[in-house]
Amino acid sequence: MRRKIVIIGGVAGGASAAAKLRRNSEEDQILMFEKGPHVSFSNCSLPYHLSGIVKAPEHLVLMNPELFLKQYKIEARVNSEVINIDRENKKVSVRDVITGEEYTENYDKLILSPGAQPILPHIFGIEKVNVFTVRNVVDIDQLNQFIKSDYSKNVAVIGGGYIGVEVAENLKKAGCHVTLIEAMNQILRPFDYDMVQIFHKELIDKQVDLILEDKVESFKENKVVLASGKEISADAVVMAIGVSPETYLAKQAGLEIGETGAIRVDKNYQTNDENIYAVGDAIEVFHTLTHSLTKLSLAGPAQKQARSVANHINHKSTINQGYIGSSAIKVFDFNGASTGLNESLIKALDLKINYGIVRIILNDKVGLMPDAAPLHFKLLYEIPTGKILGAQAIGKGDATKRIDVIATAIKFGGTVEELRDLELCYAPPFSTAKDIVNYAGYVGTNLLNGDYKQVNVDKVRALVENGSYILDVRERGEYERGHIKGAMNIPLSELRECVSEIPKNRSVYVHCRTGQRSYNAVLALQNLGYTNIYNITGSFLGLSYYEYYNDRVKQREKIVTEYNFN
Amino acid sequence: MRRKIVIIGGVAGGASAAAKLRRNSEEDQILMFEKGPHVSFSNCSLPYHLSGIVKAPEHLVLMNPELFLKQYKIEARVNSEVINIDRENKKVSVRDVITGEEYTENYDKLILSPGAQPILPHIFGIEKVNVFTVRNVVDIDQLNQFIKSDYSKNVAVIGGGYIGVEVAENLKKAGCHVTLIEAMNQILRPFDYDMVQIFHKELIDKQVDLILEDKVESFKENKVVLASGKEISADAVVMAIGVSPETYLAKQAGLEIGETGAIRVDKNYQTNDENIYAVGDAIEVFHTLTHSLTKLSLAGPAQKQARSVANHINHKSTINQGYIGSSAIKVFDFNGASTGLNESLIKALDLKINYGIVRIILNDKVGLMPDAAPLHFKLLYEIPTGKILGAQAIGKGDATKRIDVIATAIKFGGTVEELRDLELCYAPPFSTAKDIVNYAGYVGTNLLNGDYKQVNVDKVRALVENGSYILDVRERGEYERGHIKGAMNIPLSELRECVSEIPKNRSVYVHCRTGQRSYNAVLALQNLGYTNIYNITGSFLGLSYYEYYNDRVKQREKIVTEYNFN
Repeated sequence: MRRKIVIIGGVAGGASAAAKLRRNSEEDQILMFEKGPHVSFSNCSLPYHLSGIVKAPEHLVLMNPELFLKQYKIEARVNSEVINIDRENKKVSVRDVITGEEYTENYDKLILSPGAQPILPHIFGIEKVNVFTVRNVVDIDQLNQFIKSDYSKNVAVIGGGYIGVEVAENLKKAGCHVTLIEAMNQILRPFDYDMVQIFHKELIDKQVDLILEDKVESFKENKVVLASGKEISADAVVMAIGVSPETYLAKQAGLEIGETGAIRVDKNYQTNDENIYAVGDAIEVFHTLTHSLTKLSLAGPAQKQARSVANHINHKSTINQGYIGSSAIKVFDFNGASTGLNESLIKALDLKINYGIVRIILNDKVGLMPDAAPLHFKLLYEIPTGKILGAQAIGKGDATKRIDVIATAIKFGGTVEELRDLELCYAPPFSTAKDIVNYAGYVGTNLLNGDYKQVNVDKVRALVENGSYILDVRERGEYERGHIKGAMNIPLSELRECVSEIPKNRSVYVHCRTGQRSYNAVLALQNLGYTNIYNITGSFLGLSYYEYYNDRVKQREKIVTEYNFN
Repeated sequence: MRRKIVIIGGVAGGASAAAKLRRNSEEDQILMFEKGPHVSFSNCSLPYHLSGIVKAPEHLVLMNPELFLKQYKIEARVNSEVINIDRENKKVSVRDVITGEEYTENYDKLILSPGAQPILPHIFGIEKVNVFTVRNVVDIDQLNQFIKSDYSKNVAVIGGGYIGVEVAENLKKAGCHVTLIEAMNQILRPFDYDMVQIFHKELIDKQVDLILEDKVESFKENKVVLASGKEISADAVVMAIGVSPETYLAKQAGLEIGETGAIRVDKNYQTNDENIYAVGDAIEVFHTLTHSLTKLSLAGPAQKQARSVANHINHKSTINQGYIGSSAIKVFDFNGASTGLNESLIKALDLKINYGIVRIILNDKVGLMPDAAPLHFKLLYEIPTGKILGAQAIGKGDATKRIDVIATAIKFGGTVEELRDLELCYAPPFSTAKDIVNYAGYVGTNLLNGDYKQVNVDKVRALVENGSYILDVRERGEYERGHIKGAMNIPLSELRECVSEIPKNRSVYVHCRTGQRSYNAVLALQNLGYTNIYNITGSFLGLSYYEYYNDRVKQREKIVTEYNFN
């Protein structure tokens, strides 16, 4: 039976569904409407046009209606906005956005893949600035044309999510003077506060003006006025504070909307109308780790949903195991990746999860390799099961590799114990014989077993302020180049001969540069009869990052004599 | 109770065991003997000294006896060869290799970590060439000193395993004229014949003289004489044909040796003497996928075994899940990684496994990124369970990431179906929205379900010779720049209008450049009623690599008008 399948939206989800539908059946009529001028463009690559990494805007467009027709017998109509769904008669009304002409098309099955739209708050004076958003090729081309006339322009990017940060980086690389404004106390929420400080510093180092904890209050002529009273010159303003699911059509058609504000779907991505499916940024999905519904603006899940829908329409079995949310970002010279839960999400959702933290810093490859660099790694596991809940990695090396391994382990319900035994590929240019993922497994298992105790770098300021006994086991030269105020320096290499200097009746907080020597010191002291020994995870390098941004922008006393990022 | 633990061998396994023993107990006396002058050097980094990537030989040495003593209270004696084990009296005899002095030390527990030694066959005339091996820092320093006097020297590297290939690359980078001689028809056995051709071509492209299927027969004055009669000028000869476990001491002490020729150990790495453990290259381990004992010369497993032994000695629980063997190598601009089983291992061991193959080529990141490059990926799965058995990846991009994910999935008993749903990190600089690992899951599931059929590039020559119907669905311009002789060219974009040209009564073998367009063509033709359609996996790009080396060195007819590696 030849069916007519209509798809609303021609980018990630829509285009994937169309192609898979065609592979499933040569007979069905497949008709795809896209209100913009392009189908199947690379959404996530848009920011890279600004720096010229992607040279021409047309390169961002991967397919065109002619190719869809010739290669896949799919009819893709661009500049065609679906303005109404008539569920009773199974018809959609379409408006040609160029001619204004309106017409209807009937459907047997309808797939909604409308995406999400940038949130544009009504801020006073918004007409006094040049506002841009970054949703499609037309948007990015407009922004690019604007900055092209004078690359030294001032641009304010509002919102420190993935798009905001990528746009800021690429504008900076183009030569603009960029201010990145974020209302929260951190950018990039998939990373915890202690981890994301590395990105804060990198943005500052690369001369992006980073402003946190300050809100846009109003606009003046080519100026952004912040709640603090600060005024930021801005020839252009890029609005990237977030996206909201495109639900206008769904609501108007009486389709169910979930509490998240996105379209509600079942296991098979069917809406409450069995002939209407929905996929991508417009829907809510089940999060495997929070056991709740959530919005997930990620390209990978959208494509998997599309494939699933195409199979369900063709009576093939589909599975829906829910989502954990894995993502990655490059911020100048640093790479970051995250998967699953992080601490701020657990707190934000008030999840009743008892979790432990592994926080380690290790070279991403053999230290002898010229481009070896520390990788900062944080992993959350459930207590007492050891089940992995999520992880984050940031460094100049291969962060996504380690997080992909963790994402895989999470899908299989893996534990920290099981990470120890993973056999990962080793050669000096790629990794170390025991990879950082294996180390995380060792550390997590030790912590779970109560073999030793730790505090994270976020506790160090309080420790310094209340005069706690902090023991720095780095060599003397390292200590002299910068150390925590008041810390005692007994190098690991002198620990045993000087052990009598360390008080037995106090808590001792031990650190080195990255946490490995201090781990050895902690165990040695415990074996020597000390009972209140804590390893400071993140150690001096992590602490340097942790304190750097706030020290720089706030009038507060440094807790170290000098930071050290080497 | 203070025990005396003696360790024989101070590199990967020995040094790891010592450090972990100390963390487990401050009391025990730990005494480590190393017959060479260095402990704890980076074995796997040795070749990188030849090209100057690792500048000074002393950089290869990560720890020294003084540091071991000061940081870990471990006594490491270098230049100290253990020459006898007296099990009855729990004593070892040690010879100082510098003074010749001999003495004994008793032990409570003994750990053998002697490693493996390069195999040096007795070849006629070997005294007429300068022979080098690459086992330790002294070896690599000697080779480096030799080539340093004149970087244009001729060097013959014998053996195309990991060490041979890495030495060949680094010597070439130093400026030497390098010949790499391998007796088998391929280098690097962790990669199957069809995959490894990429490395063969890369070595040729980088002007390493690669000689396969030819054996060293004898040596003349600074010359290697091959079985073929060919003579190769060689100011130096590097012997890298393989390693054999150091079992001399174990045998002499009456410890059990397995059928593999390596030391037999139990779950806890105990030999048949409960006070003697053995780890590393000298032992045999259980292979989870072949269910048999094997030798595994890998640093990662050695370190894990060492840790396990240190825990067992301290009455901590240990697990031994066996090994699957993951490894990686850089060959000039290409990165390769492999895990688990490959076809040649299955054949060599005559394993009764019914397996299927996924062979795909996809960009390692979004094609718009300037450094995007095809990644060649091969995965083996069990029929009918879909259980993943092994995988290999080669490309200019991140091969180890994908293989690490597969290695993780294998550890959890994962199937091809489960690979589809992995949520891997995506951003354009790192990957694609559906990663190649997800694609492999899709393809594997389709094949397992019998959705379509395939042949691999190794069958194409026979197809051409017997006049099979080969359909090239690339665009006309691509076809003109090089195609399989006799192939019909109907671009995917013209497939439906020209379908009547394709015979219904014959088998049709379809290809494009990488296999994606041909996959769409295969499904379209099936849906149009064709029943004998095969996708040629590896497609034109894979075929170009597959045929290149043999076309170049053997007098045979090319089956293509022109290869294309772009």
